[in-house]
Amino acid sequence: MRNIKLTLEYDGTAYCGFQDQARDDRPTIQRTLQRAIASLGAGPVKLIAAGRTDAGVHALGQVVNFHTTLRIPVERLPLAINSHLPRDIRVVQAEEVPLTFHARFDAVSKTYRYTWYTRPIASPFWYRYAHFVPHELDIEAMRNAATALIGEHDFAAFRSAHGSARSTVRRMFRSEVYRNGECVCFEIEGNGFLYNMVRIIAGTLLDIGLGRRSPGSIIRALNSGRREDLGTTAPAQGLVLVEVKYAEGALKGASRG
Amino acid sequence: MRNIKLTLEYDGTAYCGFQDQARDDRPTIQRTLQRAIASLGAGPVKLIAAGRTDAGVHALGQVVNFHTTLRIPVERLPLAINSHLPRDIRVVQAEEVPLTFHARFDAVSKTYRYTWYTRPIASPFWYRYAHFVPHELDIEAMRNAATALIGEHDFAAFRSAHGSARSTVRRMFRSEVYRNGECVCFEIEGNGFLYNMVRIIAGTLLDIGLGRRSPGSIIRALNSGRREDLGTTAPAQGLVLVEVKYAEGALKGASRG
Repeated sequence: MRNIKLTLEYDGTAYCGFQDQARDDRPTIQRTLQRAIASLGAGPVKLIAAGRTDAGVHALGQVVNFHTTLRIPVERLPLAINSHLPRDIRVVQAEEVPLTFHARFDAVSKTYRYTWYTRPIASPFWYRYAHFVPHELDIEAMRNAATALIGEHDFAAFRSAHGSARSTVRRMFRSEVYRNGECVCFEIEGNGFLYNMVRIIAGTLLDIGLGRRSPGSIIRALNSGRREDLGTTAPAQGLVLVEVKYAEGALKGASRG
Repeated sequence: MRNIKLTLEYDGTAYCGFQDQARDDRPTIQRTLQRAIASLGAGPVKLIAAGRTDAGVHALGQVVNFHTTLRIPVERLPLAINSHLPRDIRVVQAEEVPLTFHARFDAVSKTYRYTWYTRPIASPFWYRYAHFVPHELDIEAMRNAATALIGEHDFAAFRSAHGSARSTVRRMFRSEVYRNGECVCFEIEGNGFLYNMVRIIAGTLLDIGLGRRSPGSIIRALNSGRREDLGTTAPAQGLVLVEVKYAEGALKGASRG
């Protein structure tokens, strides 16, 4: 038995999120990828993902792992799997990892990016990848608010009602707002995120950038723990899972061959 | 009667090119846009385009004009028309121009860009907008070859069999090859282009970048006038019409209101 770690890019537009839904037959990233791997001939596999991205959310660096008896050399796996995948999902890297490696539990940080497209007229090239906001944004105010997230905090206010995590304490390592051409981006790296947390922060930062909410509301919500102190959940298409990091120890020691 | 000039962006993926085809019912940019304008209530219009882009070719700065009795103020036209357009076509600017203005005949230069995506593994985000070439390209060789196009030349070798232009002499003002992240781009500005000319140049530059054709073959084809001295026509999805320029005189003197 081998444990294989894959790094994925995908355009989430056509998918009902990463994870299989019990009562939903629409394609998911998980099912599509599991089928592609199974078609290599070593039986069904069960994927574990670092981040279970929602419907319409994209990935530039999603990480998954699965146990398999497949004997294909690991360096040939991306091409082999990609030949069975639609063009909007790509395996960009594969490595063999210790049998104990777990893509979600072993992640030490994840980085997400949220993008707004701010020109007065929407773009035919950005509507799948950004939230269209035809207004100037106050980037300085957004940046100040975003900075307040850095460090260890109780993010109880920053999750949707159906979130189920036991602890709501998370540590943010980086939280930045910057302009990129006609886009404004928010990028955040943390040791974990509650359900919808990045999209709730993004919705709140947008309100702040539009001058409709005070930059202090993030600190207020960190203190109050009240979801009502924050803005609405931002639309899925602006969100991308950029990178997942692991400790060296979790990735080393695999028996090769 | 007014003459209106529109600047357009579109993702050409879903369209059978700009121009209506007599024997083809698939949607074209022209028909889609003409219908959107007609639905504003001043009867059918006939669009004239600066460049009749092929199926799958994109635009960041296509220019069209049409004559109309529409009385909507010109600054409100983009929003009014866009509300009747699918998301992959957008009017980004509208201006009133002299009745004599003609989007194609009055153009003094057009700029096209061709993009190759060169990482070993294709990208879920680029397959609609670049030609996937999983190889290192010799950018210096491509650049040298591209430079030979600058100036006035007879481009007889650089067109597809069904091209119908009477003169095959054109002047190129700029012809550059550059790297942009995981992409390599070829950008060319000229006073006019023969049918498939940019895609034939792109196919030839790719051969040169891959070391499969000598950088001198462009000069050879300029001298010989033989299509066989050049590479295959590059795929449509890598091509974008970036900008169309006009002389001040062609754009001024419109009777406003």
